[in-house]
Amino acid sequence: MARKTKERREELRERLIDIAEARVAENGIGALRARDLATEAGCALGAIYNVFDDMTGLVLAVNGRTFRRLGADVSAEVAKVVEDAPIERLVTMARAYLAFAAENPRLWRGLFEVEMSVEQDVPAWYMDELGRLFSIIAAPLAEMYPEKPATEIDLMTRALFSSVHGIVLLGLEKRISGVPLERIEEQIDFLLRSATRP
Amino acid sequence: MARKTKERREELRERLIDIAEARVAENGIGALRARDLATEAGCALGAIYNVFDDMTGLVLAVNGRTFRRLGADVSAEVAKVVEDAPIERLVTMARAYLAFAAENPRLWRGLFEVEMSVEQDVPAWYMDELGRLFSIIAAPLAEMYPEKPATEIDLMTRALFSSVHGIVLLGLEKRISGVPLERIEEQIDFLLRSATRP
Repeated sequence: MARKTKERREELRERLIDIAEARVAENGIGALRARDLATEAGCALGAIYNVFDDMTGLVLAVNGRTFRRLGADVSAEVAKVVEDAPIERLVTMARAYLAFAAENPRLWRGLFEVEMSVEQDVPAWYMDELGRLFSIIAAPLAEMYPEKPATEIDLMTRALFSSVHGIVLLGLEKRISGVPLERIEEQIDFLLRSATRP
Repeated sequence: MARKTKERREELRERLIDIAEARVAENGIGALRARDLATEAGCALGAIYNVFDDMTGLVLAVNGRTFRRLGADVSAEVAKVVEDAPIERLVTMARAYLAFAAENPRLWRGLFEVEMSVEQDVPAWYMDELGRLFSIIAAPLAEMYPEKPATEIDLMTRALFSSVHGIVLLGLEKRISGVPLERIEEQIDFLLRSATRP
């Protein structure tokens, strides 16, 4: 009986994440309402809070999926060019990041819309996902700069990721201060290649 | 009499911008309510819409001020190092940008929170403000790359601005993916210097 309860709980959890994910993809995190989710899932409002601590917990679960899909996309693209020079792999990853953001704009934005700073209690599984993604980026950098300690490679990974993120963000939003849409790829190329020239 | 009406209108306009600016600085754009503004300004709700087309018009006016202050800060810092090499001036500007964002976090965020893409009707005065700011950044780049046409310098200006913005954004928000706060300046330095090495 206890087993059945656990199973049902797990089923509800997955169903709620599915529904929330579809809604975030459609309208963004700001439009998520617990009441709507409960209606669509056919459960009581309180049942959501039996499964998740709060709505942020649910949003994190959605973001976790987005993260894994982003990581899988980046890994798959890099696997195709594994024989290439480190800089080519880096450029390939950045392009995969741009493509993912362009194809999943609201899910991608959602990754940055949850209040989650280094000072807050970030769930360990979430940090692990980020760590996995960053280790993919760090690998070619470590090859290019064998003399740099891991802490410096991590810092460079963050600086280059933030830079590419900035170009993708202002470019995709068609911000008046951004890079024109049709030249984002080229400018990411330029940035990564010139920033890592030996 | 018509003159007096115009003056009063202008006074109300400035008062509303003052009030809105203080509120944005305190709580961000999302917390602006027309009713609260009218109460604080001691005017009827409708009077706001006599002076501005809509709330976005008021937010734009606040952002215009932020823009001008940001431009003045960046110009003042650069004026101190006008004899330095172009790259030093570029680094100085980026640091001024970081300092402004750190000191005025909500006003600065507000610049990027209004829906305003290149495809929408952006007011000419707003584009002019941005143009002025970007021309300050473009000047050292044009010195460093005398062979590049102005359109390419503009693109490079946008790519480097977006990159620095990305580092500042994720860093200041203490995002788990960002550069640690105490190393933002150094990473901006690294990025700009390595991206513009001859």
